[in-house]
Amino acid sequence: MREIIELKGHIIDSMILPRVLDTIMDMGGDFEILELRVGKTKTDESYCKILVEGDEKIFEELEKLGAILPKKEVRVSPAPADGVLPDGFYATTHHPTYVYINGQWKKVKHIEMDCVIIIEDGEPVCRRQGLVKKGDLVVIGRDGIKVEAPQRPRKLDIFGFMTSDVSAEKPVNSLIKRLAEEMKRVKEGDGFIIHVVGTAIAHTGADGALAELIRMGYCQALFTGNGFAVMDIEKQLFGTTLGMDKDTGRVYKGGYRNHLVAINEIRKVGGIRKAVESGILKSGVLYECVKNNVPFVIAGSIRDDGPLPDTITDVMKAQDEMRRYIWMADERGGMCMIWASMLHGIATGNMLPSTIKTVIVDMNPYVVTRLLDRGTTHALGIVSDPGVVLPMLVQELRGEGYVESEY
Amino acid sequence: MREIIELKGHIIDSMILPRVLDTIMDMGGDFEILELRVGKTKTDESYCKILVEGDEKIFEELEKLGAILPKKEVRVSPAPADGVLPDGFYATTHHPTYVYINGQWKKVKHIEMDCVIIIEDGEPVCRRQGLVKKGDLVVIGRDGIKVEAPQRPRKLDIFGFMTSDVSAEKPVNSLIKRLAEEMKRVKEGDGFIIHVVGTAIAHTGADGALAELIRMGYCQALFTGNGFAVMDIEKQLFGTTLGMDKDTGRVYKGGYRNHLVAINEIRKVGGIRKAVESGILKSGVLYECVKNNVPFVIAGSIRDDGPLPDTITDVMKAQDEMRRYIWMADERGGMCMIWASMLHGIATGNMLPSTIKTVIVDMNPYVVTRLLDRGTTHALGIVSDPGVVLPMLVQELRGEGYVESEY
Amino acid sequence: MREIIELKGHIIDSMILPRVLDTIMDMGGDFEILELRVGKTKTDESYCKILVEGDEKIFEELEKLGAILPKKEVRVSPAPADGVLPDGFYATTHHPTYVYINGQWKKVKHIEMDCVIIIEDGEPVCRRQGLVKKGDLVVIGRDGIKVEAPQRPRKLDIFGFMTSDVSAEKPVNSLIKRLAEEMKRVKEGDGFIIHVVGTAIAHTGADGALAELIRMGYCQALFTGNGFAVMDIEKQLFGTTLGMDKDTGRVYKGGYRNHLVAINEIRKVGGIRKAVESGILKSGVLYECVKNNVPFVIAGSIRDDGPLPDTITDVMKAQDEMRRYIWMADERGGMCMIWASMLHGIATGNMLPSTIKTVIVDMNPYVVTRLLDRGTTHALGIVSDPGVVLPMLVQELRGEGYVESEY
Amino acid sequence: MREIIELKGHIIDSMILPRVLDTIMDMGGDFEILELRVGKTKTDESYCKILVEGDEKIFEELEKLGAILPKKEVRVSPAPADGVLPDGFYATTHHPTYVYINGQWKKVKHIEMDCVIIIEDGEPVCRRQGLVKKGDLVVIGRDGIKVEAPQRPRKLDIFGFMTSDVSAEKPVNSLIKRLAEEMKRVKEGDGFIIHVVGTAIAHTGADGALAELIRMGYCQALFTGNGFAVMDIEKQLFGTTLGMDKDTGRVYKGGYRNHLVAINEIRKVGGIRKAVESGILKSGVLYECVKNNVPFVIAGSIRDDGPLPDTITDVMKAQDEMRRYIWMADERGGMCMIWASMLHGIATGNMLPSTIKTVIVDMNPYVVTRLLDRGTTHALGIVSDPGVVLPMLVQELRGEGYVESEY
Repeated sequence: MREIIELKGHIIDSMILPRVLDTIMDMGGDFEILELRVGKTKTDESYCKILVEGDEKIFEELEKLGAILPKKEVRVSPAPADGVLPDGFYATTHHPTYVYINGQWKKVKHIEMDCVIIIEDGEPVCRRQGLVKKGDLVVIGRDGIKVEAPQRPRKLDIFGFMTSDVSAEKPVNSLIKRLAEEMKRVKEGDGFIIHVVGTAIAHTGADGALAELIRMGYCQALFTGNGFAVMDIEKQLFGTTLGMDKDTGRVYKGGYRNHLVAINEIRKVGGIRKAVESGILKSGVLYECVKNNVPFVIAGSIRDDGPLPDTITDVMKAQDEMRRYIWMADERGGMCMIWASMLHGIATGNMLPSTIKTVIVDMNPYVVTRLLDRGTTHALGIVSDPGVVLPMLVQELRGEGYVESEY
Repeated sequence: MREIIELKGHIIDSMILPRVLDTIMDMGGDFEILELRVGKTKTDESYCKILVEGDEKIFEELEKLGAILPKKEVRVSPAPADGVLPDGFYATTHHPTYVYINGQWKKVKHIEMDCVIIIEDGEPVCRRQGLVKKGDLVVIGRDGIKVEAPQRPRKLDIFGFMTSDVSAEKPVNSLIKRLAEEMKRVKEGDGFIIHVVGTAIAHTGADGALAELIRMGYCQALFTGNGFAVMDIEKQLFGTTLGMDKDTGRVYKGGYRNHLVAINEIRKVGGIRKAVESGILKSGVLYECVKNNVPFVIAGSIRDDGPLPDTITDVMKAQDEMRRYIWMADERGGMCMIWASMLHGIATGNMLPSTIKTVIVDMNPYVVTRLLDRGTTHALGIVSDPGVVLPMLVQELRGEGYVESEY
Repeated sequence: MREIIELKGHIIDSMILPRVLDTIMDMGGDFEILELRVGKTKTDESYCKILVEGDEKIFEELEKLGAILPKKEVRVSPAPADGVLPDGFYATTHHPTYVYINGQWKKVKHIEMDCVIIIEDGEPVCRRQGLVKKGDLVVIGRDGIKVEAPQRPRKLDIFGFMTSDVSAEKPVNSLIKRLAEEMKRVKEGDGFIIHVVGTAIAHTGADGALAELIRMGYCQALFTGNGFAVMDIEKQLFGTTLGMDKDTGRVYKGGYRNHLVAINEIRKVGGIRKAVESGILKSGVLYECVKNNVPFVIAGSIRDDGPLPDTITDVMKAQDEMRRYIWMADERGGMCMIWASMLHGIATGNMLPSTIKTVIVDMNPYVVTRLLDRGTTHALGIVSDPGVVLPMLVQELRGEGYVESEY
Repeated sequence: MREIIELKGHIIDSMILPRVLDTIMDMGGDFEILELRVGKTKTDESYCKILVEGDEKIFEELEKLGAILPKKEVRVSPAPADGVLPDGFYATTHHPTYVYINGQWKKVKHIEMDCVIIIEDGEPVCRRQGLVKKGDLVVIGRDGIKVEAPQRPRKLDIFGFMTSDVSAEKPVNSLIKRLAEEMKRVKEGDGFIIHVVGTAIAHTGADGALAELIRMGYCQALFTGNGFAVMDIEKQLFGTTLGMDKDTGRVYKGGYRNHLVAINEIRKVGGIRKAVESGILKSGVLYECVKNNVPFVIAGSIRDDGPLPDTITDVMKAQDEMRRYIWMADERGGMCMIWASMLHGIATGNMLPSTIKTVIVDMNPYVVTRLLDRGTTHALGIVSDPGVVLPMLVQELRGEGYVESEY
């Protein structure tokens, strides 16, 4: 097929035009540039009109890069069965997306990558495959869809632009100071901060700092797994995490039993909230969540012991519970901070719209790269030890950060 | 408390006596060695009688190291509610364990670490906490329990003894040859080999070799996740894995859609077996499983797309399904091979009795160390690329392994 | 300052124009695009004329990106002392570079990044700082310098274009097949292949395959360190590497002594060549080098034992020795293959011109990324185990590569 | 050969007896235990007399484990040429070693692993092979040598005992507090602390904290490479490290030039000390070294740019310069702290006697394991980000460490 596409905005330095031409060539297509008006100065926008010839798949891809195709009504097809999509379904990106419906561009609600768009009561909504019901009107093809490709900010802050430039060799001390400022701004603007945490936060002793962040109002929702949740409780009851002494790091012989007893104590009373109410659980991260009305989602994994009554063992249900808070963060100009959590961190990253500011702190550069690679508009990856970064961040937020001596 | 304990066997070079003394000192106890008869030559067994004074916890720990305490009847207590354990429950190791019941030592069935022992119809059975029902008789305390501590084999093979000595700097080419010999022995003895595989097996192109292992009869059960399963299907349908071309490694623009379409095709027909029967799926690892009657368990995770109808989204149910095959491997002198699978590999490792031979091949030394660290009696960790080790292993099994030229 | 710059070629999809605009903005400059003619089809070249305003440093940077500044004679200044550069010296890139001298563009000889250009007998030559002599005419400023920015190849092969996209999740088996084909092409064209090897090649047992590569004519120079060289000799004399048995991987008690004895045996006769001649060394990688007239450079490092008499303990002299062979590879359309060698691999990477095809195989993604990050035009990074990739590559070159069975 | 050996001390829980039996079996020998008196309580020492039969190599190995062989005069042989050892030379361990000479046990001076012992004026001295001169009397065989095998301390502190148990999942915040206490004790006792630092210390911005440690008197010698040294200077002159802005982490276009200019500025004046004296260098780690009379050793490597005039390009000379300060640390009950330095850290680790307390902080568990694996008696490995641990440590030393809020 042959069709004329248009590109608008900062299309050259945001890499949109280069990536469009790249894509056409990679996918075996041909192009002719019919018109190109380049913004002459750095604030001017540019415009490009290109005649593209090639496979339908090329056009689908160009659209995801922000190419505007001729305005047409969106097309839909009913789902043939529960959880089954019609052929030719449109798979979403995590960028803001609009659907041309009844002669009007409408924004897709709850956008998330690798899902589909349903037209529900005339409104476009993003939905994961498993929740599609028989007869739902699923968007197909590529007509009437517009994706707002992220544009390079004219001014840079600590958040990089679609970069996967990840390295341990960064001025981490300086980044912590700037991150603290950014968090203060989000809090002042009534933003919604989600923290995703892995077991290393308990093992390293950074859980005290996390509890303090919650008390200080810098956490509106917490996502974690059964492992961290049990360790948090075990630490309050026995002073150990998986049997490792919280002060010396020495593994207490027979200490793994503490882990199992911690689970049993919570099972006895029926859950974490009840354990707080009944006075069994008197401190810790989950205790602070309960006391400060911060919702938490504990998602199950195949490695779990126990699990706790609060752990959602069905992974799809756990995802949907996490989505609820991601949507809140999206509405309130939120932020998502991922601390030493490969499994839950990547799971959360998959569900985030590209517009939510994302911070990842992990020792493993692979985890940081994987999360940044998704083309997030505002992302900060710090390859460092979350177990020491978190306390330093709290010190900064308290105004007690590290300052070099004057000599 | 003060009590006399006994140790028997190769207790010095198997590190049992040293670890017993170490444990007593670490946990603040005291000891007096009443008798020590050391095996004078390397095949003689040794005997030691020690008076130990200290906390009850010490005795619990010593027992796990193989110390024999005075013979007493085992004690039990009914579970107060479903999934709730009585106080003082005995937490299991993954070593062969015996219970003294009605004046007789009985072996605990399906032993697995961090679980409890139930007495069911007079027989001791190992059970995970979540499956304990109200009124089940749960073993408590430490009376009448005997753990068979693993003893250093008098002769060494490729499997190390309780070692976590893990390094990429090993003669991997030579180890592959020896591993092939070991697998042939297991197959000849009608053994049961479980393979646990991660997505890297599909990405690297080693899935062809895995399919061949199945056809050759070297796989009796397959454990994996939704990610690998979808990629295996995507590769047969589109020649890509997550949109990456299987030959060039180039990421096909818009290719992630292939992943979602692959899921949808299987959902249309209701599952993998039906996809094979209806001719939609004509090759690949899961195809070979179906054709060769090799059972597979696809365990869900919080990161999953779709998922496939065959994916067990409840992680506890998925664990129990995996246990069924682990028990078979245990009965038939089996082996467990873990290929590039951190999540499912560690989950499986947690459920294995210490007597099953375990092989782990992973690029990440952390994963290998974590799996070997559990004190497995026969374990081989190879820090290398499973994507190239697997094809080389198949070549060895076929008798076509790499041989240096004669010059 | 204000100046008009020009850009020519595939400047949009090779990312040259976007990076030029990016750079101006990042460095606080301003621009106005005076003319932009875009190649209308994928084979047409483009042209852009931009008025740039800003700091002198901006222009220096733009030039490195390939911007052509108004033609002026190059400027030089004499070095004030041995090893000391005149202020304002021009620091090189590793891309082909031309100097406008006496009204003519002349290509800089032996180009290498982070060095300077000397005008010697009217010819521009690249030189490292330490070798600059008092009075040498060193190029200063940015007049009369033209850098040939690498352009995206219109057709893709296994070598990526300036990419640092590095992942273990690549179809390594397929890449090995294609790499073998590429090596055959280089050999047929009388190319010059440099291999840089680390100690893992000896430990893993891939040294046999490397020896075979040498015999087969796929190695024209070998760079390594004292560690690998000693292990190669130790293995021929004792069958161990650092005391680890070459077949079982078991560390032979007291085996480190073998390493020291191996060094002593070579010291006794005065060097590796003499050890081959006198019949002490009868096989191995270095033996094959001597027998096949393949030069080797053994560069010293602060960790070395011994060292061998052949080890160049002065690191600057070792660099210069390596440069000699890099220049040969540059002239003969060569290739550089880096196997499990972080220290020597990165050192070599720093000295390579961007036009030499580079292959890096390493378990550590960090090493691979670091080497690819230098903006090499033709680079292939494989995150896998060099210890198994090397034998598989030899099998492919022999025509005995892994083939899936037909069923 | 057959011989009776004796073992004394805490030989069971220090793993000496088990390792002796293990070694005999591994090396194909046989044993008969003639006498074994076990310390009955935890403070009593034990005694064992064993008849060992086997290869001479076994006895050499047993001796390194602390076995006492029948008292005989040490044997020596003259070195046949400079840098060449006599056959049968004794290779050292890094444990305290005694030589039986003229009927007396004498302690070997400057003990270091993988070297030889020379008898010089009747005194045993440890020497590296390269420094052995023709005619030097080199100890051969195993007669008259006694190695003091490290014994498990009866009381544990933060330093582990010969452990390579390395994990990121440790209570790092608590360990930092304890490490600060330990450093205060060393300083009060007029100890000698060597810091070995890599480039990450400059990149992450922890160099300010290191400079402060020097001012506070916690650094008596600094070992580093040309890379860190140049960055330290570049940062004072330009505010960048390899062109990366020290505050934002953004890589300044064309910034690598700063690195080369920094080298040139120091070359102009002839060295770092002169640059401090002449007022060119006004701050930074090396500035503080000069101002506080802390010696530094900058060892060259094959990757170096420049290098600085202070860089010792001959690696063997650099080693010997480092040895001088290691001997001082050994005499003054010193400590060695290795920060993010793989190359120089491992090189230093190879030269340390086992009795010097060693602390390694590195993101890479491999580096930490490799350094701890050497059987050091007092070692603490922290797998964390040195870039944040170092500032936190300074805060602790200042008495401003992180304290959780009271609520």
